[in-house]
Amino acid sequence: MPTQNNELRHQRNLQETLQHIYHLLEKQKLVNELVRKQDTPRHELVQSLVAKQHLVELKHKLAQLHPADLAFILESLPLDDRIKVWELIPLEKYGAILLEVSEVVRDSLIASMERHQIIHVTEHLDSDEIADLMPALPKDTVFEILTQLDSQNRAQVQSVMQFPEGTAGALMDFDMITVREDVSLDTVLRYLRRLGKIPHQTDQLFVVDRNSTIKGVLPLTELLIHPPEALVSHVMRENFTAFYTDDSAHEIAQAFERYDLISAPVMNSHHQLVGCLGVDVVVDFIDETLQRERLNQAGLEEEEDLFAPIWKSGRNRWAWLALNLMTAFIASRIIGLFEDTIQQLVALATLMPIVASIGGNTGNQTVALVIRGLALKKVNASNFLHLFFKEITISLMNGLLWGSVVGLFAFLLYQEIKLAMVMMAAMVLNLLIAALAGVFIPLGLSKLGRDPVMGSSVILTALTDSMGFFIFLGLASLFLL
Amino acid sequence: MPTQNNELRHQRNLQETLQHIYHLLEKQKLVNELVRKQDTPRHELVQSLVAKQHLVELKHKLAQLHPADLAFILESLPLDDRIKVWELIPLEKYGAILLEVSEVVRDSLIASMERHQIIHVTEHLDSDEIADLMPALPKDTVFEILTQLDSQNRAQVQSVMQFPEGTAGALMDFDMITVREDVSLDTVLRYLRRLGKIPHQTDQLFVVDRNSTIKGVLPLTELLIHPPEALVSHVMRENFTAFYTDDSAHEIAQAFERYDLISAPVMNSHHQLVGCLGVDVVVDFIDETLQRERLNQAGLEEEEDLFAPIWKSGRNRWAWLALNLMTAFIASRIIGLFEDTIQQLVALATLMPIVASIGGNTGNQTVALVIRGLALKKVNASNFLHLFFKEITISLMNGLLWGSVVGLFAFLLYQEIKLAMVMMAAMVLNLLIAALAGVFIPLGLSKLGRDPVMGSSVILTALTDSMGFFIFLGLASLFLL
Repeated sequence: MPTQNNELRHQRNLQETLQHIYHLLEKQKLVNELVRKQDTPRHELVQSLVAKQHLVELKHKLAQLHPADLAFILESLPLDDRIKVWELIPLEKYGAILLEVSEVVRDSLIASMERHQIIHVTEHLDSDEIADLMPALPKDTVFEILTQLDSQNRAQVQSVMQFPEGTAGALMDFDMITVREDVSLDTVLRYLRRLGKIPHQTDQLFVVDRNSTIKGVLPLTELLIHPPEALVSHVMRENFTAFYTDDSAHEIAQAFERYDLISAPVMNSHHQLVGCLGVDVVVDFIDETLQRERLNQAGLEEEEDLFAPIWKSGRNRWAWLALNLMTAFIASRIIGLFEDTIQQLVALATLMPIVASIGGNTGNQTVALVIRGLALKKVNASNFLHLFFKEITISLMNGLLWGSVVGLFAFLLYQEIKLAMVMMAAMVLNLLIAALAGVFIPLGLSKLGRDPVMGSSVILTALTDSMGFFIFLGLASLFLL
Repeated sequence: MPTQNNELRHQRNLQETLQHIYHLLEKQKLVNELVRKQDTPRHELVQSLVAKQHLVELKHKLAQLHPADLAFILESLPLDDRIKVWELIPLEKYGAILLEVSEVVRDSLIASMERHQIIHVTEHLDSDEIADLMPALPKDTVFEILTQLDSQNRAQVQSVMQFPEGTAGALMDFDMITVREDVSLDTVLRYLRRLGKIPHQTDQLFVVDRNSTIKGVLPLTELLIHPPEALVSHVMRENFTAFYTDDSAHEIAQAFERYDLISAPVMNSHHQLVGCLGVDVVVDFIDETLQRERLNQAGLEEEEDLFAPIWKSGRNRWAWLALNLMTAFIASRIIGLFEDTIQQLVALATLMPIVASIGGNTGNQTVALVIRGLALKKVNASNFLHLFFKEITISLMNGLLWGSVVGLFAFLLYQEIKLAMVMMAAMVLNLLIAALAGVFIPLGLSKLGRDPVMGSSVILTALTDSMGFFIFLGLASLFLL
């Protein structure tokens, strides 16, 4: 029955499984406590039997799960429970799980492992997987692992590790099958049957010459529909997408998405095949970008283990808060310049946050659109001016519209037509500054090679706050006193 | 040579191509202007010949490009240039391009098309693709298109259209090959050769019985490595991932990512195969989520054509700004309650934005972590309390730390120890409120079935602003006057 094997149901059941595991862990804790409290040997024996039963049940449950699901469960558990469950999982699943979990959780799991366990685990991994784990492993094990590899695998591990993070070279694996162009499809078919195993996510074979230069790709679908006597060179595609080792993950993701790729060869500058990329890597990359941006926008540099020690979580958030505090101090001192003005007309103190707040919000809308345009490479030198004037015009329009609303609000409250005019003028000017900043800050950060997602919003808000207070209070002291 | 065919290079060249197209369009405009100004027939003839040359060059350039690249170029052009380029593209590429562009650009392109062109374009599309385009097409063409389809295709279009957006039923296509379990692999191989074409992104065939019930899947890789005389039933996998038509895109994306899938069958509640899903749909979905969240966080409901008319762009941003204005008014009135207090101690006006601003920023960090936890399904009833106490503790820790810094700042400025104490106390309290709100607002929105990305931040900031002002000014009027 497909339902039993339907892994999506299975995924929904994951929450239930997780509940069940919590439940078993709780029971175990209770039993252990009872054992500690009641020191009669008789009781101890009974209780430890019960405890063992729970452990066996848990172990059985865990052994049935897919490594990706186990990774999910480990991520959802507080540190001590996580280690307890980790130790109940069969050793042969360790490798796949370590590759799946987030960096912080990976560190916590590896820290709990014995040296010989780590070495045992890496023995069952591919060389690109070993290379992925390397940075997380204790230094002394790295050397031992490398010496135990045969020379080809060692060379592969070292070649992957030499490429900068986020490039095709670092992301590629070696799970690929190569064929020559002068053989018949029948030869290829017999070769594949002899191999007895085709790597996961193989949708095409790579056609290379004796120097490993890529000549073309042979999709499995073409292999299947053409007569066996046809030559590879007649059936292969010479028009295919390939990457160089230094191509960035972002470019790779865009190409996979645009051309609906499943796999692609990676070559060095001599057009020699050195590895391959699968769509799973791309899916992971896009998803990680999504997760990272969610955090970056709130100024969190690193992903945070939900169960990280409080001290560590606090620190993760400090750099951003310190920066915010500094900009808040500056805004505060700008208000300080106008203390006399506020003293004379205290209504200003009640109205000034409105100017600052709306400025920040409209500016952040512009920032979001520009960042999106940059990410999709839709903003360029040719259309920049168009975009620029559009944002300026919208900000003027919004300034007049919302400035009138705000001016009316001020007039209704304080019956002062001049105050209302100042309020409106301040809104128009601050929205103009917000639009300018909203266009130039992300573009500037991007030109400087920095990620505009991380910094744009804080710089913009600092500017619109300070300028909002300055313009409003400045106009007020000029025209109202 | 692979470099010539390397579509990633090609993608980098896309910016150059775009420049070239701009250039050709500019030249054309110049020529047209000249023609208008100089009314001598002789000149006109020469100029129109030059203009024609540019058009021919442009047309040639466009004909060579991949539909996905053409879609990218059309998205990057202002409306009038976009339509001009669109009309130069060969009609047979229209379908693929319309499927690729964003909704807003799609609308602008379809608006420029004749009725008979639209009908011609849909004739070359698969039924799931027609269903995707349907909502964008003029009502009167829809009927004509449906009547021109054969009954099987019409049923398919209607079945896809009946499913709610974002479910497996609406996302699936019908590009799949089914086989029976009681035949040999050799029969399957001969069947495939006879078909002569295997749909793009096919990595497995679906094994069904005569009622269309799914019995298993036959990966192409298994088909290739097993002896031709083996039976499908012996080689097929009975343990596979399948989706029901009502499964959500989010669940599908998680399953594809977790189990590294390339395709998966979609079945109805009777386990009958009704369609299939490819990884390209999943990649598009994750990427769209990323793009949408970037906008939603700034309160932009819809994606915005970079070249949308200004009036339309303005409106897209108004709902959010109106909401922000309301919350700013409330904060302003809260300050208004303490006008007398501020009049007596104007330093309060300079310091109050600090309390509000830091509260908003710490709260948004908590929001980002909770939203991430919710998206990854890592936040649940069992670990909620753990998470909750962690955030409260961090906020107390941060409140004491940054509260002291802020208190010191206030003391240095105004030499008032009581003012410094009030400032510190207000920080601690407001960060506590920020942490509570940061946990409960996204959880609450999510429980109510709303997207926490869209609303959390604005509700939180409204709360931390108002409460920041209220607590600080309230404490000040109690203890300082």
